[in-house]
Parts: sequence; C-alpha cells; structure tokens
Amino acid sequence: MITKYTVKRVKSGIPGFDDLIEGGFPSGTTVLVTGPTGSGKTTFGVQFVYKGAELYGEPGVIVTLEERAQDLRREMLAFGWDLEKYEKEGKLAIIDGVSAVVGLPSEEQYVLEGNLNAEDFLRYIYRVVKAIDAKRLVIDSIPSIAFRLRKENEIREVLLQLNTILLEMGVTSILTTEAPEPGRGRISRYGIEEYIARGVILLDFIEKEVELKRYLLIRKMRETKHSMKKYPFEINEEGVVVYPSGEVY
Amino acid sequence: MITKYTVKRVKSGIPGFDDLIEGGFPSGTTVLVTGPTGSGKTTFGVQFVYKGAELYGEPGVIVTLEERAQDLRREMLAFGWDLEKYEKEGKLAIIDGVSAVVGLPSEEQYVLEGNLNAEDFLRYIYRVVKAIDAKRLVIDSIPSIAFRLRKENEIREVLLQLNTILLEMGVTSILTTEAPEPGRGRISRYGIEEYIARGVILLDFIEKEVELKRYLLIRKMRETKHSMKKYPFEINEEGVVVYPSGEVY
Amino acid sequence: MITKYTVKRVKSGIPGFDDLIEGGFPSGTTVLVTGPTGSGKTTFGVQFVYKGAELYGEPGVIVTLEERAQDLRREMLAFGWDLEKYEKEGKLAIIDGVSAVVGLPSEEQYVLEGNLNAEDFLRYIYRVVKAIDAKRLVIDSIPSIAFRLRKENEIREVLLQLNTILLEMGVTSILTTEAPEPGRGRISRYGIEEYIARGVILLDFIEKEVELKRYLLIRKMRETKHSMKKYPFEINEEGVVVYPSGEVY
Amino acid sequence: MITKYTVKRVKSGIPGFDDLIEGGFPSGTTVLVTGPTGSGKTTFGVQFVYKGAELYGEPGVIVTLEERAQDLRREMLAFGWDLEKYEKEGKLAIIDGVSAVVGLPSEEQYVLEGNLNAEDFLRYIYRVVKAIDAKRLVIDSIPSIAFRLRKENEIREVLLQLNTILLEMGVTSILTTEAPEPGRGRISRYGIEEYIARGVILLDFIEKEVELKRYLLIRKMRETKHSMKKYPFEINEEGVVVYPSGEVY
Amino acid sequence: MITKYTVKRVKSGIPGFDDLIEGGFPSGTTVLVTGPTGSGKTTFGVQFVYKGAELYGEPGVIVTLEERAQDLRREMLAFGWDLEKYEKEGKLAIIDGVSAVVGLPSEEQYVLEGNLNAEDFLRYIYRVVKAIDAKRLVIDSIPSIAFRLRKENEIREVLLQLNTILLEMGVTSILTTEAPEPGRGRISRYGIEEYIARGVILLDFIEKEVELKRYLLIRKMRETKHSMKKYPFEINEEGVVVYPSGEVY
Amino acid sequence: MITKYTVKRVKSGIPGFDDLIEGGFPSGTTVLVTGPTGSGKTTFGVQFVYKGAELYGEPGVIVTLEERAQDLRREMLAFGWDLEKYEKEGKLAIIDGVSAVVGLPSEEQYVLEGNLNAEDFLRYIYRVVKAIDAKRLVIDSIPSIAFRLRKENEIREVLLQLNTILLEMGVTSILTTEAPEPGRGRISRYGIEEYIARGVILLDFIEKEVELKRYLLIRKMRETKHSMKKYPFEINEEGVVVYPSGEVY
Repeated sequence: MITKYTVKRVKSGIPGFDDLIEGGFPSGTTVLVTGPTGSGKTTFGVQFVYKGAELYGEPGVIVTLEERAQDLRREMLAFGWDLEKYEKEGKLAIIDGVSAVVGLPSEEQYVLEGNLNAEDFLRYIYRVVKAIDAKRLVIDSIPSIAFRLRKENEIREVLLQLNTILLEMGVTSILTTEAPEPGRGRISRYGIEEYIARGVILLDFIEKEVELKRYLLIRKMRETKHSMKKYPFEINEEGVVVYPSGEVY
Repeated sequence: MITKYTVKRVKSGIPGFDDLIEGGFPSGTTVLVTGPTGSGKTTFGVQFVYKGAELYGEPGVIVTLEERAQDLRREMLAFGWDLEKYEKEGKLAIIDGVSAVVGLPSEEQYVLEGNLNAEDFLRYIYRVVKAIDAKRLVIDSIPSIAFRLRKENEIREVLLQLNTILLEMGVTSILTTEAPEPGRGRISRYGIEEYIARGVILLDFIEKEVELKRYLLIRKMRETKHSMKKYPFEINEEGVVVYPSGEVY
Repeated sequence: MITKYTVKRVKSGIPGFDDLIEGGFPSGTTVLVTGPTGSGKTTFGVQFVYKGAELYGEPGVIVTLEERAQDLRREMLAFGWDLEKYEKEGKLAIIDGVSAVVGLPSEEQYVLEGNLNAEDFLRYIYRVVKAIDAKRLVIDSIPSIAFRLRKENEIREVLLQLNTILLEMGVTSILTTEAPEPGRGRISRYGIEEYIARGVILLDFIEKEVELKRYLLIRKMRETKHSMKKYPFEINEEGVVVYPSGEVY
Repeated sequence: MITKYTVKRVKSGIPGFDDLIEGGFPSGTTVLVTGPTGSGKTTFGVQFVYKGAELYGEPGVIVTLEERAQDLRREMLAFGWDLEKYEKEGKLAIIDGVSAVVGLPSEEQYVLEGNLNAEDFLRYIYRVVKAIDAKRLVIDSIPSIAFRLRKENEIREVLLQLNTILLEMGVTSILTTEAPEPGRGRISRYGIEEYIARGVILLDFIEKEVELKRYLLIRKMRETKHSMKKYPFEINEEGVVVYPSGEVY
Repeated sequence: MITKYTVKRVKSGIPGFDDLIEGGFPSGTTVLVTGPTGSGKTTFGVQFVYKGAELYGEPGVIVTLEERAQDLRREMLAFGWDLEKYEKEGKLAIIDGVSAVVGLPSEEQYVLEGNLNAEDFLRYIYRVVKAIDAKRLVIDSIPSIAFRLRKENEIREVLLQLNTILLEMGVTSILTTEAPEPGRGRISRYGIEEYIARGVILLDFIEKEVELKRYLLIRKMRETKHSMKKYPFEINEEGVVVYPSGEVY
Repeated sequence: MITKYTVKRVKSGIPGFDDLIEGGFPSGTTVLVTGPTGSGKTTFGVQFVYKGAELYGEPGVIVTLEERAQDLRREMLAFGWDLEKYEKEGKLAIIDGVSAVVGLPSEEQYVLEGNLNAEDFLRYIYRVVKAIDAKRLVIDSIPSIAFRLRKENEIREVLLQLNTILLEMGVTSILTTEAPEPGRGRISRYGIEEYIARGVILLDFIEKEVELKRYLLIRKMRETKHSMKKYPFEINEEGVVVYPSGEVY
C-alpha cells in the first residue's frame, strides 16, 4: 500500500477563497479565470500576484495585454496596491504587452515587441520568470494573446504549450478569458480554454430583480476537492473578497 | 503604509448619473455606451461633451460617423443645445465623418476624408483634440469606424489603440456601439468592445406588458465602485435624465 | 438663452398614428418600417405617399422593387386608392424596379434598368424626386435594393448615403425592410438598418391563443418624443388604421 | 369618387378554406404554401389544381420536382383523384422534373431536361401553361427549383421572376417550400420566399400533450381581408379539409 | 366514378407498429428513421429486414456503413437474430461498407470499395438487390453515405436518386439519419432528408424527472392515414417493440 | 432455434457503475465519455485502465494528449493510484502525446512524435497495445486527436477507423470528448462522436439552487440493456463513485 500524495498548496491571496479549494491552488497549476465584462477577472489575477509578493514573499509576473503597465499600476492604487514598490524590490515584474502594439514609446523594463510569434512570446515570459525567480504569474488575457499572435486558429496549441511549460517551471498561473454567455454554458471566448486549463473559476453575475449580484463558481480544479456552489463575492476597496458562508439569493 | 490613490472625477453632465459612479467618470477613461436602436446612445454621448463645454468649461470633440455635422446640430436643438455657439467659442469641435463618404460637399471645418486608414483616423482625432485642448470626446459609433476603415477583422486592434492613446492624452471619452441582443448577453456589435473599454454603460428597454421602459445599467467602471442596479431614465426635452432612486418595474 | 428649435412635422396619412409622434414625422427624416411577412409594410409606405398627394397636396415617389408598378396600382385599388389619377396630375410617380429584372417589357414612365450600381440608383431617384418636386418617398424594400445592387456587403454604405441625401433633399422617406425574428430582437434583415435610419417603426403580430393580433411599436424617432407602447392596428378597406387608445391584449 | 376595385376570386377546391379569404384566392396571385415535413403541402397544391379541373373546368399544370409524375399519380389515387383522366382530356398537365435528374427514362409528355437554367425553366413552364390554356399551377417545391437550377444564391431573383411572370400570365399559382422552425418564425427554407410571394399559408403542427394536431394559418394574402386565426385541418380520404369553425386546442 | 386505389402494405416486423400505419408500409416506399444517438435506429432498420426474411419470406439487403458486417452480425445475436442463417439461404445480404474505408481486409461476399462515387454506389446496391431478388432494404446511415461519397453538398441529389430508384425497383426501404435537436424541430442531420423521404419516423427520448423514456412518432407517411401521437416503445431482448395503447407520460 | 449469444462483460472498475450495464462493458466495445469541463472524464477513463490492472490483472494503455505522462501520474496519486508501479510491471503503458507538441524533451518510453498522420497514430497505438497485450485503452481526448492530426474535417473517418480497429483487436476502449451544451442536446464537440461510438456516457452537472450536482447518464450501450436514468456520482479520494440507488434532486 502506498501513501497518498499530498498536494502542495499555494495561497491565493483572495480573502475567503482558499477555504473552497483545500487551502489553495495546487502548486504549479494553471487556472483559467473567466467571466463577462466587469466581472473582476483582471483584479482577481493581479491580486493573486500582488498578494503573493506582499504576504507570502513569492515573486510574481504580470503580463498585461489589454492596458499598459503604467495604467495598470495607477488603477491598482485604488485598492491600495503599490505594484511599483515590489517591482523595485525585485519581487514583481510587469510585462507591458500593449505599448508596442499601439505605437507608443515605453520606458518599461519588460516590453513585448510588436511582432511576435508563439515561441518568442513563451520564451520572453520564461526569461522574465527566471529573472526574478517568479512563483506566480498572471496573463491578462487569452483573447489578447490570440490577437497578438494572430493565432486564433491555433489557440489550442498555444494554450497547451503554455499550460505544460508553466507546470514544468513550477509557476502557479492565472490566465483570464472572456465568457460571452455563461448562462448557456459558453464560459470561454474560444470554447476550448476551459478544457486545456487545470482549473476553471467563473466570475459572473446573477440578475436579482433589477440588480446584478456577483458570484464565483469553481468549475474545475484538478488535484483538489472543491466546492461546486455559487458563492457571493465583492470587489471593494481591498480588492476581491469571497464569502464562503454567504448565499447567492 | 501608502495613502490610497484618489481618482480624479469628470462630471458626466447627465442629471442623476454621477451619483451612481462616485461622482463622475475617472478622468481619462474610455467608456462604452451600448444599446439597441433608439436607446439614446447618441444623445448620451453628445450631452456629455456639450455639458462639458456649457457647465464645466471643458472643451470637447464630437466625431459623428452616422450623420452629418449639420444634421446633428439641428437635431440637438430639440434639446435646446446650441452646439454652434460653443464651436464658435472654440470650446467644441465636430468632426464630420459622413459627407465625404456619401459624396456630398462639406463646409465644415473638420472633415474626415473618404479613404482613411486607422493611423490617419487616429492622427486626425489627435490633431483636433490638441487644437482645442479638448478634455472630452465622443465617437459615434464603433461599427461606423469599422465600416469606414474596412477593418472589421482588426476592430480589437483599433479599439486597443484608441483606448490607450485617449488615456495617454488624458481625454475622457465615450464610444458608442450597437447591442443586438442585450437580453442574451450580446451587448455589443462585435462581442469584444466591452472587454477593451474601461467602462461599459448599457442603455436598454424592458418590456412591461405592452410598453417598453428605458433603463440604464453600468456593467463596468474601472477605478470606481459603481452600482449594479438597473435605473430608469428618460429622454425628455432636457436630454437624458437618470433617476437614481427610481425603480424599473 | 436660445429659443428651442421647433421641428416641422409631416402628416403620415395613417389614421391615429400622428398622435403617437407629436403630430407627424420630422420633415426630411428617413423612417424604417419593418416587420415579418404580411405585417402591412408596403401598405403603410404607399399610404404615406398616396395620402400626401390626396390630403396634403404633397407630391410623392414610390420606388417599387418587389412588384411591378401595374400590379401595385391594381392592388391599391382594393383600398380605393387610385394611384394613376395622381400620377396623371403629376403629384405621384412610381418607379418600376421590377420589369427590367424579370425581363418583361414596361410601358411605365419611370423604369429602373436591369444593371444598376448604387450611384445610378441614387441618381435616378434624385432625378424623379426633382421632376415632380416630391416631398415624400417610399422605397419598398431595402433587401431588394441589396439584391438589385448586389451589394449586401455594402448595405451600410448605401443606407448611409440614402439617409443623408434624402435628408439633404428635404424628402421625408419610408424605407421598408424584413424582420426575421422580432421577438428575439432581430428587427431587420441585415441587423443594421435600424441603426442608420432616423426613425424605426415595427409592424408585428402577437399570438393570442390561436390568433395573431397586429401591433405597431415605434422603436426610434429622432427629434420626437414618441410613445413606446404597442398599439393595435388594422388593415381594413381604408388601409392601415392605428388605435392610439386601444390595448394589445 | 371612384368605385372600389372588386378582386376576382379563384376557388381553392379545399373544403372550408375559401371562407377564410373572401371566397377564394385573388386571380393571378402566387401563394406560398409552407410547412414542415408531413404537413400536407404537396396534397394542398395538387388538390388546388385537380379540383380546378374537376369542379371548375379550369385547366392546370403540376410541376413535380420531388417525385416522378407516375409516382405522384399513383399516390393521389389514394384520395380518389384520377389525374390521368384529366390529362387525357387536356385539362391537366404534369411536368416531370425528376426523371432526368435521377437518370431514369421517362415516357411522360412533359419532361424537364437534366441541365436547366432559370430562363429555360421559366420558358418551359410558360409553354405548357399556354399549351393547355392553364389557369392554375402548382410547383412542388421551391428548394427543388433552387437545387435543380443550382441557384440557391439567386433564389430571390428566380422567385421574383416567377411571381411576376405568373401574375402577367394570369395564372393563379401555388409554390411550396419547407419551414424548418415555424415556432421561431423561420417559416421558409431561405427566409425570403414569404416576402416575395403575394400570399403565404402555413401548414403546421401544434403539440397537444403527446399528440400532434394539424393547423393552418394564413400569414399574408394581398388584396384580401383574411383571418389570422389558426384553424384545424385534416388530411382524410378526400384530401385536405379545413374547419373554419373549429378550434385548435 | 373510379374505385379508390388500394395501397399494398408491407409488414414492418416491429411488434405493435403496423397498427399505426394501416397495416404496414406502402410497398416500395422509402422511409426515413431518424433520432439522436442510442435511440434504436439501427435496430429498427435491421429488424425490418431480418423479420422480412424470417416471418414473411421476403429477401432483404442491409447496407452497413458504420460498422462491419461481422460486428453487426454479432451484435444482432443479442436479440437472437441469426443473420448468417438467412444469408446462407440467400434471403439476406449484407453489404460491408466499412472494411475498405478503415483499411481492414474483408472476407465478406458483398463489399463496397474505398473510393466510390454516387453512381457506383447506387449501381452496387441495385446489383445486390437484383441478385437476391430483395424486397426490403436498409441503409445505415445517410450521413455515412455523404461521408463515403464526399458529397455533403449534393446530398439532396443523391437522396432524390435513391428514393426514386428504390421506388422504381419496388423495394421497400429504410434509411437512417441523425437528429441533432428533435425538440427544436431539427429532426435530421442535413435538414432535408425528411422532405425527400416518403415516410419519416422519429425515435426519440422524453425526459421524465431524471429518466429518459423512449417514444416513437410518425411524422409523415405518404399514401397512409397515420397516427400523429407519441407512442412508447422499448428495446428489449426481442428488439424494438411499440405499445400502440401505451401513454408517454 | 438458436441459443442467444451471451455478451462477454468487462468490469469498469467504477464502483456502482457496472450495475447499470448488465455487469460491465461489452468486451471490445468503444465507449465515448463526454461532458463539460470539470465533469470527471479524464478520471473516469484513467480509473477504467488503472483498475483493470490493479483489480482484474488486465494490462491497459493510456494515451494522454492534454497533459504529459508525468503530470498525469502525479495527479492520479491524489487518488492513491500509483500508475508507475504497474508500468514497471508491464501492466500499464502511458503514451505521452504532449511533450513533442509543446517542444519539451521526454524521457518517457512511449512518445508520440510532433508531426503525425492518422495512419501513424493508429499504428503507434496498435504497436503499444500489442507490446503489453493490452485489454483496455483510454484516449484523452478526441478533440486533441483532431488537433494533433489537423483533421477536424475528417474526424468522422478517423473515429470510424479507431472504432473498428479497436473492436478488431478486442480492446475495450474509452474515448473522451467535450460537450459544449448538453442541455440543448449538443453532447459532443463535433456532433458526430456519439453516433460512431458503440456506447455513450454523459458526465454532467445539474444546477440545484446555487449548487452544481454531478450526474451520469448512459445514452447508448450496444449489446446491453442499460438504464436511462440520471444517477448521482462523486469524485472523492477514491476516484469516481456512482450511486445506482441515489436520486438526482
């Protein structure tokens, strides 16, 4: 008889969330965070990396493909998160994936060039992860990868590569994607992201009378016994907060 | 411990609306206003720019891609808005994006040429914004941009560029788009506008018995704690008016 | 302080309808009349032009792209409308857009040729409007324009041109289109007609038990405070009649 | 004051049906009969032509594009309709549009060749109509025309030609088509047949508990004040019989 | 007055079924059997041919395009049907349409080659039918024909040919097809099979609480007055059994 | 009279499951396991092979196309399943179909090359099955096969080959696929997998208030009288466990 393998857990940094997944993400796993516009995907992802640096001393990388590093930094100040401070300490790195595309100059340390293929993209991320010995990573977002690489048809291949290489590197990662119609089961832009990722978290809204209420649902988490309930969450001045004992009514 | 960053707010000029978003739009943000036909998108966007000039002394630019400048001016007179007056004062500029396309001569000061690429389009807007030192901008509409630039496939790239450059210029902007089936979650023409924009406002109808009632719903507003309720609004002789304490029944 | 602009109104000639739109269509506006088969679009449009000549002395043009002028004339006799009489008086002109396409000879005064591009089409309409100094126009239908011009992909451009040029000419116009699934929000053939037009009227059916009931709904009317209720209407021996105080139950 | 035009009526030969349309079809009109498989479209169309010959002495033409003339003749014997008798009397002609396509020899008098363009097709029908001085015509079915002519893209043009030329010839006609999802408003194969035809009759099923019930609904009939109720009908040993005073429950 | 034609009936061999269709299929007709996966289409078709040989002494042909003849034989033994016995007696022939495609050798007497066009396919079936003087035929399935012939675009033509030639040969036939969404009216793979076939039988499931119940519904049967009720059926150790007096609740 | 053929049964190794299918899968059959993301498809398939080796002494092959062999091994340790142990004993083989695609080196014994056609793929599986005399096989997943072989258009052909060859080899197999919208009847990625496979098992979720509940439904199982109820199941520390006497409420 063998002893059961104990999965190493990585704290999410999202208050209330780790209770739902046996204490944290399985180390090295790649988790898809999906939802419609305004559901809090970017905040969730950045919080995971920021809190890693702030609370657990784990360096992390943020790949921002939808807004510039400087805009992201300013925006996160609203939650009191001073990304720059941890960047200076070498515990956080932001890869600016926007400036080159929109034709603006960038003074960032880490910048993606305008024309990039999948190999260059993966190699660059690999290099930055190694440079700061990162344990956490967020890429915001998959549709922007597809758009940047002009590889919508090969998105399955790119995701499979990302997923496997990140696991090989031991980096726990969050990838965001867009969910056009969660109510009808379409929980990702391309309809395949959720099958490739090892974990899937849906951030969505329920309409109650004439108000939208936020909820979080874990659709998949390998190596983890996870809840399958819809939990209420808020985005307040501290970022994303999940209520494991709350009810979505 | 750092002090939390305070977001600078820009008054919308829409009565009742600023109460829902902590006092105004975050300065420099790009907001998508979406909805089906007849929902009031053009009025909302023009009101934002006009009231900026009238009430807050902030110059603004209107890019009209669906009707000529002269038709827009006449139409807005129905709300008592005299665009021409502020144009003469150099506080308002209208870029006529229709005349050249339909082959009619234009005596406007600012006219888009018939054949335009994305770079020319962005450069022209940039030039006019600088010319009157504009703080506000409305572009009506995104589908018309796509049509004008013949770039439906690259709409994500154009929107990302617009979004980033406007933010860089510090211009608070409204872009309008068309929402084919809001009830089924399709709140934009191309299904991606809402993900690129930093704010999303849906203007829509609810059918009550045999009557349509207008409501407004804020789906996303970065750097802002916003309500997620459906609020009734009217388009009356003063333009768009939102009722923050009203109920959509 | 400026005096508010007063919109000049054009009587529709549809009993009961003008009460819903502040007395009539805004002069020079282009209105889309849409609905499924059998909803009364052609009758509505022809009535607008015919009653203009009969009751208000305003000359009008009918562009018929789905049946020949002679068939339309005979059909309208069922409502007691003698189109020919007003044609002889120079107060009405019918442009036959069918004969050439189907390869039948035509003895009509105004005939569209078989092979036509958008410019020819617009120029021909312009010429006939000028010839009788028309104030009213109906084009039946937009899908037939697209079919005739073989320009389904450029329908947005053609509509924008039509809309702007008709407004420039001061002709109040009705364009008809087909609504495949009004119940699901698809109220036009191409999904864009309603955004380009300045007014949108939906003629549709509600199923009551095992009977279809007609209703009319104004979805958009620029420069006009319009009702947003569903009103019952009939097509009887006098043509279209709307009941502003009726209920659709 | 002019006297209202009185529309000449053509008896349908369908018991109970003429009561719903002011006594019969308008002479020369083209009526679309549509419905899902097994709804009785072919029977309705053949009955119209057969009863014309049998009861009203009006010659008629049947264009059969889905089964051979000989199979149709045998099948109609089940209703006691002896097509051959009237063919011999010169009061009925069947155009066999199947044999050549399937590569079987045909001993029919009227046979469509295997490779046909729209002009040939229309000319052949014209010739047979003239040959027996036909007043009635049924073409079964439109999708088979499209398939035969390999003109799915130009079906609007072919239908417009058919519709106009038949009207010019004074032949009252029935065209059948397939309705994939009547419940969702898709009442024709190509989504355009119903707009081109001057009349539209839907034959469909309602599901009552675990049984399908037949009903007939007139969606459009130009020059006719028609009912818009769903009427029950049967296909019994006499053919199609409509119950104008029945209820579809 | 003529005597009504009496349709010759062919016993289906499905217990309980013939009661629903005036005693049997019309001789020579082609019937479509459609339904989702696991609904019993293959069993229904094979039973029709097997019972023809066993009970009525009528030779029959099975064209198997989804599994090899040997696998089909073994599978049918579960119902106690010994196909091989009747093959040896010359009363049953199985055409193996799979072995050549998958690249396995075949020791079958009747084998379809790997590369086949529509004419070869029809000719081969014709030859085997003649060889054993078959009165019954099943082809399992239409989508596999389309796949084999690489003729998805011309499936209407192939079906029309099959339908007509089989009728000419006097062979009563069953063709199977796949029904993706019967609940929404999509009862065949290509949306046209049901219009070409002379009879249509739907085998489907109703969900009752958390259990699926089988039902059979006759959607069309030419020359036959058929029930339009949903009847429960089972697949038990005797094959398909229909319960004409049962209720689907 | 012949004796009925008795189907040889293969134990699934899934507690509670064999009760639903007369004691086990028919030997040599190919079963499709389908469901949305997170439904337990991979676990079900691996458990089938692992338990074969552990409990029944039957060698088995796992073809992993979505994660590397080493990641799969680690993940399965969470259930206490030591794949490596049986690999060393020659009772289990894992074919790594990921490493070559993602460009990582592999020290695995069985590795699929990066560029593969359907014949190579089938031949490799055949070789490994023979090497360890495997009786069981799982391929995870069909969409990944399609992606690897770049044969989405020919997936029907590949599946037919797989299905037939595996049956010929006498290997009982599980293939997994993705079900985008099970609630609307779309239970497989390509809409054809379920028709080719000889058995179909759906693993899905029912939403109860705000919680998802797992259920299993057997949609098809040839040569087997199977239940058609939805059964609750869990994925706990022992793997998949089905509750044949449970209720899904």
